[in-house]
Amino acid sequence: MKNIAIILSGCGVYDGSEIHETVLTQLALARHKTQVTCAAPNVDQAHVYDHFSGEVVVKQSRNVLTESARLARGDIIDIDELDLDAQDAILFPGGYGAAKNLCNFAFEGSSYSVHPSVEAVVKNAHQAGKVIGFICISPTIAAAVLGTEQVKITIGNDIEAVGVLQSKGAHHINCPAEDIVVDSLHRIVSTPAYMVADNLLQVETGINKLVDKVLEMVEETGDST
Amino acid sequence: MKNIAIILSGCGVYDGSEIHETVLTQLALARHKTQVTCAAPNVDQAHVYDHFSGEVVVKQSRNVLTESARLARGDIIDIDELDLDAQDAILFPGGYGAAKNLCNFAFEGSSYSVHPSVEAVVKNAHQAGKVIGFICISPTIAAAVLGTEQVKITIGNDIEAVGVLQSKGAHHINCPAEDIVVDSLHRIVSTPAYMVADNLLQVETGINKLVDKVLEMVEETGDST
Repeated sequence: MKNIAIILSGCGVYDGSEIHETVLTQLALARHKTQVTCAAPNVDQAHVYDHFSGEVVVKQSRNVLTESARLARGDIIDIDELDLDAQDAILFPGGYGAAKNLCNFAFEGSSYSVHPSVEAVVKNAHQAGKVIGFICISPTIAAAVLGTEQVKITIGNDIEAVGVLQSKGAHHINCPAEDIVVDSLHRIVSTPAYMVADNLLQVETGINKLVDKVLEMVEETGDST
Repeated sequence: MKNIAIILSGCGVYDGSEIHETVLTQLALARHKTQVTCAAPNVDQAHVYDHFSGEVVVKQSRNVLTESARLARGDIIDIDELDLDAQDAILFPGGYGAAKNLCNFAFEGSSYSVHPSVEAVVKNAHQAGKVIGFICISPTIAAAVLGTEQVKITIGNDIEAVGVLQSKGAHHINCPAEDIVVDSLHRIVSTPAYMVADNLLQVETGINKLVDKVLEMVEETGDST
């Protein structure tokens, strides 16, 4: 059985992990009968967003790990306790949480940086030859951590955002929601999901392809733990 | 195109709508190419539950409509603004929110009651011959509103909870996660989902069957709006 970690960033598209993308990732992994570990940083969210009114809630703070636990039905660990050696692959769902809490791309633009615990997971997983899957806006993390290696990724086709990723050294490829971009050399797979998708079915198609490809690449190494 | 309303109760299994059940419902409806309207009561949650620590957060309140909006990516309305005439069917995902915010079954046991706006939707939809689908713990709502009509429902096999539903007049049938209970007379379908399910795939099977049956029953009347 393969061990896959999902790194979450809260719960809700505008301040956390995108819920549909996360559940479709969990569903695809369940079909492959993988062992899933959910993890998230134990830090305050950048902010709380009222998903009904469309405004930031100024007077409230929420914790990324605590809110991510909603998506994991309580079965989640602090990212600093993730046993990377035991994992075959790492997956990052999207949602603004990936660009607000796991890195600060949404606020800082081209001068953005990645949360140290998240950076360590990506860097160490990459160095150990693990496969990493990035969904939606989360390839910004790949660009920041591994851009100097010219990693090949997609976040869809947003010209401004693409320019920022390219400034980090990443090789961006435009991609529709139903497809994936594969970097076989760096063992990275990405799909744009709601960066470009019009509906849930397109997101499902892209995420299913990503999970299939990630597990195929895990299999190729034969290094399952 | 059929119009289906999903009634939400927050966002997270322990104080709102169960996230997996909600997304699997949305996914099944998307496959059927239905028009979906999400709605929730504009009231405070009964409480906020920390899904990581497993404790109630005493010092915070959250709004059911605002939190439900996370599951709907912001596309949601106040249940009091739901145009019932335009709907072909109403679906209730589970999660403790259904038993804490839509009704108070989780706190009051056999003397529980249903939120007036939710009661009105169920009563009026039923009287108008709409199909209603209840998932997980949400059949408690059906029992409270329509128990005197001996509606046939399932919440799995929990003896104590079943006893309460029977005390309302409901006819309970034990059911596994991958199956549904159909009350053709009252046009109600239910599936126990995480009341008994061990995993996401079992929940998916039950919810897909429920949505298929609900849409089949809608088709039988030929009263699509």
